[in-house]
Amino acid sequence: MPVPDRKGLKIVAIDVKDVRFPTSLEGHGSDALHTDPNYSCAYVTTRTEDGRQGFGLTFTCGRGTEVVVLAIRSMKRFVLGKNAADIYADFAGFWRALTNDSQMRWIGPEKGVAHLAAAGILNSLWDLWARIENKPLWRLLADMEPEELVSTIDFRYITDVITKDEAVQLLKDKRAGKEARIKQLTENGIACYTTQVGWMGYSDKMVKELCNKYLKLGFTHFKVKVGTSIEDDLRRCNLVREAIGDKNTLMVDANQAWSVNEAIDWMIKLAPLKPMWIEEPTSPDDVLGHAAISKALKPYGIGVATGEMCANRVMFKQFLQSGGMQYCQIDSARIGGVNEILSVYLMAEKLKVEVVPHAGGVGLCEMVQHLQMWNYASVCYDTMGLIEYVDQQHEHFFDPCVVKNARYMAPKKPGYSTEMFPETIEKFKYPDGSEWQRMFKEGIFPSPDEAELVNS
Amino acid sequence: MPVPDRKGLKIVAIDVKDVRFPTSLEGHGSDALHTDPNYSCAYVTTRTEDGRQGFGLTFTCGRGTEVVVLAIRSMKRFVLGKNAADIYADFAGFWRALTNDSQMRWIGPEKGVAHLAAAGILNSLWDLWARIENKPLWRLLADMEPEELVSTIDFRYITDVITKDEAVQLLKDKRAGKEARIKQLTENGIACYTTQVGWMGYSDKMVKELCNKYLKLGFTHFKVKVGTSIEDDLRRCNLVREAIGDKNTLMVDANQAWSVNEAIDWMIKLAPLKPMWIEEPTSPDDVLGHAAISKALKPYGIGVATGEMCANRVMFKQFLQSGGMQYCQIDSARIGGVNEILSVYLMAEKLKVEVVPHAGGVGLCEMVQHLQMWNYASVCYDTMGLIEYVDQQHEHFFDPCVVKNARYMAPKKPGYSTEMFPETIEKFKYPDGSEWQRMFKEGIFPSPDEAELVNS
Repeated sequence: MPVPDRKGLKIVAIDVKDVRFPTSLEGHGSDALHTDPNYSCAYVTTRTEDGRQGFGLTFTCGRGTEVVVLAIRSMKRFVLGKNAADIYADFAGFWRALTNDSQMRWIGPEKGVAHLAAAGILNSLWDLWARIENKPLWRLLADMEPEELVSTIDFRYITDVITKDEAVQLLKDKRAGKEARIKQLTENGIACYTTQVGWMGYSDKMVKELCNKYLKLGFTHFKVKVGTSIEDDLRRCNLVREAIGDKNTLMVDANQAWSVNEAIDWMIKLAPLKPMWIEEPTSPDDVLGHAAISKALKPYGIGVATGEMCANRVMFKQFLQSGGMQYCQIDSARIGGVNEILSVYLMAEKLKVEVVPHAGGVGLCEMVQHLQMWNYASVCYDTMGLIEYVDQQHEHFFDPCVVKNARYMAPKKPGYSTEMFPETIEKFKYPDGSEWQRMFKEGIFPSPDEAELVNS
Repeated sequence: MPVPDRKGLKIVAIDVKDVRFPTSLEGHGSDALHTDPNYSCAYVTTRTEDGRQGFGLTFTCGRGTEVVVLAIRSMKRFVLGKNAADIYADFAGFWRALTNDSQMRWIGPEKGVAHLAAAGILNSLWDLWARIENKPLWRLLADMEPEELVSTIDFRYITDVITKDEAVQLLKDKRAGKEARIKQLTENGIACYTTQVGWMGYSDKMVKELCNKYLKLGFTHFKVKVGTSIEDDLRRCNLVREAIGDKNTLMVDANQAWSVNEAIDWMIKLAPLKPMWIEEPTSPDDVLGHAAISKALKPYGIGVATGEMCANRVMFKQFLQSGGMQYCQIDSARIGGVNEILSVYLMAEKLKVEVVPHAGGVGLCEMVQHLQMWNYASVCYDTMGLIEYVDQQHEHFFDPCVVKNARYMAPKKPGYSTEMFPETIEKFKYPDGSEWQRMFKEGIFPSPDEAELVNS
């Protein structure tokens, strides 16, 4: 059991910072509903008595980060003074206590701000654990015995799809060949697709240039944002299809722009361009709506992808059960940290739905590569499992993801690749970082709101 | 159209306070998952240029209220400086802008802290509108033309169940006899049931005494908390059934304690006590789970009730579509305020599911009576529609709900009955109210957390 010795592992400090990047200035990350995102995060540092540190984050889009930061500060009371080794020895129990405090659960439960906050803390604890074991997180996970791995998961509300015992058995059944798969990952990594060619804010010229750039880099899968105007979408998708040819794959992403029937009508118009999936056609909460869309689009060969805003394992369970999701897009920062994400992978394998993780925000590529590599080593090796890739904000991380020939290379450094450079924090901490102070002074952004000053 | 003149209605201030009552001291409100709630609220006061005020609140359970308060402070930027008359003239548009800000929606969307915060603001705006029109809210709603009422609702994501045009037609079809129903409500109010007899923290003796008390007060429907131990539940439900006899109605409430199969097994054991419904058997997010439980319990004559933690209209839509909910328990403070609740009532009527509102927390009884009375006047008059009733915290309100002979009497004062006494705020504002300061000093409660001081 990889539970470390307790000595020195008492958690003595949890620090959280509001870190924002001014991405809205250039339209990076813009889509039908998120027209001007400033890619941001609530950045958590957990310190132990013996001076170890674990780094965790949860992704946000600018305004509202201050609320997540305060929620993390409010949750410190459930972590400070505990010994990290005790947490790892009953990680599922700790997870339940953190996410289901008898008073605080009312403001969730297990969704929105409260769950984003829990994820930030939990991610820092996983980073700390992997550092203690001196392994990259994906190896920590892949090296665990089935019983150990499963002991980190709270199975409440999902036993109708998978029980703890079934999960252990599933992992045991998949053990054969694991070492060879780990070797394969270490040598060749895992394939990715690009979302970089088709943000909503990009000009046609830029879209064409980017298609050519990413084709040259070896990419074969390209995703384009849609959902604002059908004429625009047809023009942009045609542009991309012409640039990438018929042998490569096009996916489209509506970022929740449509109601159910509208989604079906719109996609039938885009069907001649042969997209492999429509991502987030409607509300991320609409299981039955996604199931109706999936059914209607099946004859056109279009699958439905969703998950980046799926609230928790109970929602994922239903998407997987109902046929509402042909591509399961777990997000490394949204649901309740690594613990809950592991349960989604296990359910997806049981119900035979492919996991193609969401990535692209601050730290999401860095984190999710670990999860998908564990999945390939220990759970699902029928497919290599594409990962989304966006080339933004990696320069702020000590251990940035490395993409070569359109493949994520396996992380080697200990931890969850979540540590940011101190210079980044100094510059982009909101609102008092030096870059923000400069931008306020130069009138590039308005001064921070009263509420945004609360945590500074 | 009841949209007021713009003069003087510019919104110049939004104040929000963290107000908590020490209800955990006596076990009021305790259930399987909420073992020690301090009934609380984020309390919003919206002020106009001409000195008018609207009061709104969203219910919470103690810890975490500070996070909702900060979220409301963060959302002030979307309201301050706007003219209230312009908001009412396009209330659906304002609702969308408030709940779907391009950056802030990431920390929801439309769920958890962000949506609770939106509800607090929206409720204050509805209170203000009703005060401007000099009507109790239920009359403001009941007096609106169908087109006017429907203009306050955002139909995105629900058009597969009801479109704007269908909603207008539904309201038109129900118009006949409305004046007579309003008269009936004014004279006799609307029936209620009590949850007061069976909180988890109460002794057997207290349960028996309370049954007798509420029988004498004219109550015919009694709800008991279950879900911690089947032996306890059998004993407590037997106690209540014996006290109330076979002619009266028993309901049971598990407050999300079980997984799906566990819920079915547990309820089959309680079936001989003939509960009319099992409330919140499992995760509030599990539409398909509730549908499975409903199906399994139908042969036993037990319906499934849920809704107090249902996140938004999209989740309600699916519970209503799937047969997962036989009793629809809208909550006046949780989903996005009156606007979104109206859409749930309309969907429930279209799909013929009875609405039996949740109440009992701070201000919930005060608010929800208005909604259910509008429903009876304008939407669903096949049943009188029970409302939950708990006799707690009413003394803090200027216009408390009045229950006589187990019936809520129709509110007469202008507004949404949401205004609290200044003395209450002075005493129970957390953490600096005089009662809290006394309790900290006397060691009755630990001192506030660092995060809880942020808004004070």
